[in-house]
Parts: sequence; C-alpha cells; structure tokens
Amino acid sequence: MAASSSLFSCSRHTGVPALNISKHSKNNSWCHWKISNKPPMGQKFHLDDVIESQQFDRDTLTAIFEVARGMENIEKNSPGSQLLKGYLMATLFYEPSTRTRLSFESAMKRLGGEVLTTENAREFSSAAKGETLEDTIRTVEGYSDIIVMRHFESGAARRAAATADIPIINAGDGPGQHPTQALLDVYTIEREIGKLDGIRVGLVGDLANGRTVRSLAYLLAKYSNVKIYFVSPDVVKMKDDIKDYLTSMGVEWEESADLMEVASKCDVVYQTRIQKERFGERIDLYEEARGKYIVNQDVLNVMQKHAVVMHPLPRLDEITVEVDADPRAAYFRQAKNGLYIRMALLKLLLVGW
Amino acid sequence: MAASSSLFSCSRHTGVPALNISKHSKNNSWCHWKISNKPPMGQKFHLDDVIESQQFDRDTLTAIFEVARGMENIEKNSPGSQLLKGYLMATLFYEPSTRTRLSFESAMKRLGGEVLTTENAREFSSAAKGETLEDTIRTVEGYSDIIVMRHFESGAARRAAATADIPIINAGDGPGQHPTQALLDVYTIEREIGKLDGIRVGLVGDLANGRTVRSLAYLLAKYSNVKIYFVSPDVVKMKDDIKDYLTSMGVEWEESADLMEVASKCDVVYQTRIQKERFGERIDLYEEARGKYIVNQDVLNVMQKHAVVMHPLPRLDEITVEVDADPRAAYFRQAKNGLYIRMALLKLLLVGW
Amino acid sequence: MAASSSLFSCSRHTGVPALNISKHSKNNSWCHWKISNKPPMGQKFHLDDVIESQQFDRDTLTAIFEVARGMENIEKNSPGSQLLKGYLMATLFYEPSTRTRLSFESAMKRLGGEVLTTENAREFSSAAKGETLEDTIRTVEGYSDIIVMRHFESGAARRAAATADIPIINAGDGPGQHPTQALLDVYTIEREIGKLDGIRVGLVGDLANGRTVRSLAYLLAKYSNVKIYFVSPDVVKMKDDIKDYLTSMGVEWEESADLMEVASKCDVVYQTRIQKERFGERIDLYEEARGKYIVNQDVLNVMQKHAVVMHPLPRLDEITVEVDADPRAAYFRQAKNGLYIRMALLKLLLVGW
Repeated sequence: MAASSSLFSCSRHTGVPALNISKHSKNNSWCHWKISNKPPMGQKFHLDDVIESQQFDRDTLTAIFEVARGMENIEKNSPGSQLLKGYLMATLFYEPSTRTRLSFESAMKRLGGEVLTTENAREFSSAAKGETLEDTIRTVEGYSDIIVMRHFESGAARRAAATADIPIINAGDGPGQHPTQALLDVYTIEREIGKLDGIRVGLVGDLANGRTVRSLAYLLAKYSNVKIYFVSPDVVKMKDDIKDYLTSMGVEWEESADLMEVASKCDVVYQTRIQKERFGERIDLYEEARGKYIVNQDVLNVMQKHAVVMHPLPRLDEITVEVDADPRAAYFRQAKNGLYIRMALLKLLLVGW
Repeated sequence: MAASSSLFSCSRHTGVPALNISKHSKNNSWCHWKISNKPPMGQKFHLDDVIESQQFDRDTLTAIFEVARGMENIEKNSPGSQLLKGYLMATLFYEPSTRTRLSFESAMKRLGGEVLTTENAREFSSAAKGETLEDTIRTVEGYSDIIVMRHFESGAARRAAATADIPIINAGDGPGQHPTQALLDVYTIEREIGKLDGIRVGLVGDLANGRTVRSLAYLLAKYSNVKIYFVSPDVVKMKDDIKDYLTSMGVEWEESADLMEVASKCDVVYQTRIQKERFGERIDLYEEARGKYIVNQDVLNVMQKHAVVMHPLPRLDEITVEVDADPRAAYFRQAKNGLYIRMALLKLLLVGW
Repeated sequence: MAASSSLFSCSRHTGVPALNISKHSKNNSWCHWKISNKPPMGQKFHLDDVIESQQFDRDTLTAIFEVARGMENIEKNSPGSQLLKGYLMATLFYEPSTRTRLSFESAMKRLGGEVLTTENAREFSSAAKGETLEDTIRTVEGYSDIIVMRHFESGAARRAAATADIPIINAGDGPGQHPTQALLDVYTIEREIGKLDGIRVGLVGDLANGRTVRSLAYLLAKYSNVKIYFVSPDVVKMKDDIKDYLTSMGVEWEESADLMEVASKCDVVYQTRIQKERFGERIDLYEEARGKYIVNQDVLNVMQKHAVVMHPLPRLDEITVEVDADPRAAYFRQAKNGLYIRMALLKLLLVGW
C-alpha cells in the first residue's frame, strides 16, 4: 500500500474502514468512551496494537501524553521502574534502525521489562527458507509478550497485527507508517510550547518524501486553529493529498519560499533532511535542494523567544551546529521524548491505564 | 564426524563409548540411579552438558518432560519465574539461527536469568586472528554460567564441552546434532497424544537430510510398540543406518508412497521441508520432490480426530495454510514447547532437579 | 591523533595538558586528594570518563584494584550483585569486538545493571545519513546512563566524552587507546606476583604495533625498581618514544634476542601476537617474525616457579597449547580479570567509591 493512500485509510475520508483489530474482545465501546484526564488505573487500553497514526484521536493523544509525562518522573529503583517486570518484548527488525531499536529497548528496560533482540529478522525468511511473515509472528509470539517490528514493506505491521494474539507496535514499515515518531513529535510540541490548539508550525525541507512531516500534519489537524507553513525546494514539495486533507479539516496552510519570514511567525520550525537517495543520479538537483533552507544563527535571530527548532534526526547540515547551544534547539529533547512516548505505549498495551 | 556415525556413537551399537563428560565428579552412580517420577528437589542433574540425543535414556526423558510441564505453568513474577536469577547464559552462535537463539534467550529470561548474545561468534576466530574454539570457550566461560552454542562443524559442541568447566548446550552443530529439537519433538508428541508407547508416527518429506527426523526416529526407539512410516520422494529416502537401528531395537517400520493411507493410520504426521540447497543444480528434481507430499485439507480429512500434524519449521508450502486453523495443526504449539524444554534444561543444568 | 603522541599527552612530558574533562564540577581537588586504602563509601569517583591510560596515577590504580578485588568475591544474588540495579549501559561499537563487548556486558549484568547493545553503530552514521559522532552520542545518552564505546578512529572516545553528560568508557579507539586492557594487565601482574614495585617483565613479540604492550610499559613506569626486557623480531621492535619515556622515568630496560635468558630472569613473560595485517604483501617477513619467539615447554622449563606467562588474547601459536596446563599460564585468568576491572570501573563511574 502506498504511503499516501495508507495515510488516509480512515473511513471518514476514503470509505475504507480504519484499522480496528480487536483481539481480546469484539466490544467496541471504547469508541464512545469519554477519556477523562485520568482514566481509571489498570483499565484496559482500548488499542490492541499501534500500527498507524490514524488510530489516535485527540482524546487518546491527550491521555497517552499524560502517561508519557508521568514516565519522565520515574526514578531508578522506584516502584514505577518495575511496572513491566516479568514482561518480555521482542524487537523484530527486518531492516536495521539502531536509533529506533535502542529507544524501544531502553523504554522497556526503564520499566523493568526484558528484551529479545533480532536485528536480522530477514534471516527468518531467507531466500532458502522462505517463511512467511505470519509464520514468523506466530513463532515469536510464543517467546514474548509484545513485538516491536520494523519492516521494509508498507502494510507489514498491519499483517502482523492481524496474525498475532499479542500486541504489535509498528516501528516503521517501509514507506508506510512510523506512528511512534508521529506521537513523539506532537508530544514534543506540547511539552515545548505548552499547547497544541492555535499552534503555528513551519515544516521545512523534504516534504514530499518524509513520512514524518506527513504524519505530523495529519495529527496536527486534530487540533483547532492550527496554521501550517510549508517551506521546501520545488522538487520536494508537500503533496496535494495532505494539502487537501488539511483544507477538508479546516486547517489553514500556506506555502512559502521565505524561511526567515516563516521562522519569525512560527512556534515550531520543524526541519527535515533532504534525502539524497530520492534523487538517483541527479546529484545536481540534490545539492541545489539541500542547500536552500538551512536553519542557522540567522534563522534563530528572527525566531520568537518561546519558539523551538525540531528535527527527527539524523541531521546533516540542514541545521548548523551553532544552533545546538541555543535553548530553542529542541531536537535532542525531542529524541529523548521518544523514550517517554514508547514507555507509555508499552505500559498501556501490556498493563493498561 | 559424519551425522550418521555420530548418531550411533553410543557404546551399545558401535563399541565406541558414548559421550560421558563428568566435569564435576568422576562418580558415575547416576547410571544406576533409578529416576522416580519426582527426583528430590535440588539434586544435581546427572548430565553436565547437552550435546547429543544419545545422552537421554527413557527415564531421563520422562523426568525432563515433567520439569518442562511445570515450566508451562510458571506465572509472571511468581517465585518460579526467578529460578535462575543471578545466572548468566552466553549464546555463542557461529552461524545465525534467530529462531533457536530467541527460544533459548526467552527460556533464560522467563526464569529470571540474564543473557549475553553473540550472533557473530565467528569474529572471535576470524581469519586474521585465528583463535581456536577451545580458547574462545575458555574466555567466554569466564563471563558466563552456561554457554548455548551453535556451530557449523559437526562435533564442535563436544569439543567445547570437553574444554569448558561450565555447562554447554548444543544448539546445533552443522550436520551433526540438535538435541533440544529432538527433545521438544518427543515432548510435543507426548503432550498432544498423551503417550509415547504404542505411538504411530508418519515421517514425511526429506528423510535423507533432515537431522530432525533422524533424531526423532532414534529417540522413539526407546519406547515400546512404536510404528514408524517413512513417506518421502525417492531422492530423499531415509537412510539404511536408521532403518537398521530401528530393526535392531525391535521397532516396526515401513516405507510407503501413499501419504493418505499413512495419514489415516497415524497418531502423528511429521512433515518436513524439502531442502532446496541439497539439490544443487538439479532444480527439476527439487521441484518434483517438493510437490509430491503436501499436507492439506484432504490429508486432514482422512486423519483421525486425535491425531496431529507436526513440523520443525520453517515451512514453505509442504503444509498448506488452510491446515493452520485445524486444531490438529500442532506445529506452532510444538515451537512453543521448545521454550519449555529449554527452560527445563537450563534449570536442570544450572540448579539441578 | 597518532598513538605515540597520544600516549604522551600528559603535561609533564609534552607541555600539552592531559585529559581532564570535568563534567560535573570544575573542582580539581581530587588532584591533591590522598587516596587511602579505603576511600569513603559512596564518595564520587574523581574521573568522569575512562579514555586513556594517562588518566591513572599510582594511587588511583591502587584504589581501583582494591575495588576490583572486591568484585571477585561478589556472590550470586548477594547485595553486591545488585550494586548497579536500575542502571543502563549502552555498548556503542563502531567495529565488532565480541570479546571486549561480552566482558563489559557481563560486568554490567554481574552488578545487576542492564545493557543496550549496538554492534553496528556505524549504521547510525551511514554514508547516506552522515550523522556526526557528537549527534549520535547526544541521542544515545538520552537512552542510557553510561556509554562503552569502541571506534575505529583514534581520539573518538575523547570527542564523545567532551560531548556527553554521562560517563564514557573507551573500549578501544583504533590505533589509539584501550585503557581497560592496560588496567587489567597491571591488575593481573599484581594478583599473580603479589607486587608491582621491583617487578621484572619481559615484553615479547610485536612491540612496534601492539598498543597493549605500549600502554603496559607506560603504566609500569609508575612503579619503582621496575625492569623491562624487550624481546622481538627486528621488524617489530619497540619504538623509541616508549624507550625514551622509560628512561626519563628512571625505568631500567634492555633489548634482548635471547628469550630463554629473559624468561629465566623475569616475573612476567608477556607474549603478544605478531599481527599479520601489518606486513602487507611481505608474507615472508611475517612468517619469519612469527616463528621467532614461541613460548613453549622449553621456556616454561627455565622460568621461575612464581613467574607467569601473560597474553592479551587471542593467541595463535606464539604460545603452544602444552603451556596451558601449567599453573604459570595466566592468560585465561588475565581475561577473567578484565571482568573484575570493568565491574570496578562501571561501579566507580556510576555510583562512586
């Protein structure tokens, strides 16, 4: 499934039913459930798996963020640090992603859980052997309590979730989804700026290929009075599907070629890396694109005092190192927030609220 | 040492003494020891290492299976889940086998133990460095309490056991042995059918090359009134050494070309994968062999109600996916039983009965 | 930075200030601090990181060795085995070194700590992505409490330490330093011989390229009445920088071509591997060099009763296997001492004395 269609598989906009795998019951009452600020302790989380951003409505995000906030305060050897004692997470990675894997494994261990690591999951289904993803999942679920899965094919996580009796978390499936990244981005905006309604966000860089900025735009549309600016080289502009979606949701957006002006107005400047691999042999186009919008001291100088610079990392030189020392450089805090979001999701999927 | 001779290194049949490494004492009294159904708690396990199927007599199997059965009932955070707390297992894998590795690591962690993982153990003895297996073992035993080892050379596990002062478990040594797989297969038959004496087992597929079916036939010979059917394409028929051995042990066996008839009579249909890599350039022979005996709905239809289908996994299409939904499809339960058998062996080797 | 200059970066000899990264305070009072045999429990360790041998003066070595000695006696499931419970160590290896990695991971787990493993840290900064080491460190320090790092570039560990707010341990940075190896070597001499002052050590083999023997010579110079013998093929003789340094420190040394005579006089025969990769196409020179000085039964026969043979491992045939059975073969005990030294350093950096 292509990224663009996948992003809109929710029923409101495409007529295709959104993902709703209900493993443990067919009771869908959670759909009507009003999430208070504090859901009752121990109550079952209403999601069985974390597969795509579309699973999260605004109330769910609010509640997850509250759990994540609590995770920030867990002390070493406190009772909270043993929340997942006795639970075993398998990281089933069909392609390497050390950054994401370490973040999940740290999250599990920070909560007292244990980890089985598989960085070369492709070997399960090697050419010679040819096991299906479904068979691999049925085997691994016998060894663990939750599976965090990275795959090279869009839709693989959804297939795994349809097979498994234990929770699956999608840690990126090819050009498809990477929902925990989307959640940590929104969480970071709320933590840094203190609100999501009324936020002004400048999305900068490769807006055509980055699943990160696409998912972020999608989630921001759940909040009111949001304004989004797109700042990108012509060859990697935001695609129409997202623009149309934002319009349909009443989100204001505009394209701009003036990073300085956008930076002066925004609460968040979300920079991204221009992905060289998308340009094939046209190195000239790549070089032109990557040098066009750099976040540097000049950009910082026009930004508001409360505003922040974000980036999903890794970065090359699209943010200069001089920016790092400024308190508005939020990207390493953003990476750390990934830990808290993943701690929250592991806790919710394994032991509930 | 070739697989066939290795399989029969026990003294009764070849005059070669069976493996009997006694690390901690030269006292062989366990040979005469009558295993009751419940050996006294904490008593030393009479094996120092798990190297090959020949180490296990019928009483030992019975006792191990009883421990494995107990493992099925260990609850999260119960005292049982902390049986191996403080113990450290090193997985020393000279070739990748994610499935086997995860099973062992899960077993260790389910009992509260810890794991050191080495998936690229060849690097220890890289061409440039050239360390012997013995030196590697002496180093790794300084860091751990038990070593689970996978190697590409037949006999490697035995050499490791001869060197180490800590227990070694053979997780497969090339064309040689894979004793924990053999144990989990027998355990699964007992769990699924409720007995081993008088069992009727159909071994199907690649019987020439599969060490799994060879070891299974060897262990089944320890039980009475067993009948074994061999169903395989001509190019991969069961070899004479096993047939002769079964005959010498009074086990009835026959070859058949009629899978439907065998399936209708058996308690267990044990399907295996035809290994493409054995056919070299003769892809035509491979294609002919692999399509010949498929376990599908038609086979299920003639099988008895209490009978089961087993497979060591991974499977390709030698069992069709339609079979998965039938309660008689035991292969994923079989994979899970590997966890319990490995938990039992780790417990026995590290802390005794 | 080349190994030779790096080794002498301490201010006394080059005018260049020695490494002195003070993360948590700029208070240098530890320089004047008299280490008693028992520093007060819980007092902060005066080093923030372990980057190079030059950080360790004689008093610090004595105190670390005392902690390491205590580590030898920690029992399974005793309070000592939980010293680092709740702490998380990341092993960030840019090149594989299974031996060193397992030793650190075992050390951490023996103290109740947890581990995040990265054997392919290069992937963080792959060609396509191009993240700097500094960015990687800032990300990983968000997930862990201490980073053990192996890198292919000399000076990488120092750069990491300058960036990180958590402790960094250098587990080898290219041709640069491998300080924990140097410490375990000195610790082993003290454990085996019972003293360091007045010791006579024969360094044998590849003295030109081995960072091990260079660091060992450097650290031994901190003790009094030490005598060092260099025994090596001409093509891999000890370089002048170390010789000059020893002379400047008042350490007696001599070169010898007679291994038997040296062995008869020494407390320690420290053998090393001739590194084939240093000889390029001159296989003839390599073969000549590697066969020249072998430690075998003849050498043992002339050695004193209390003397020992050491080797950093892996060995090829520069020590014959017949030597292994002699109680004076200390190299596997030496490897195990690496565990205790690393336990001590992890404890000191994370929770202090």
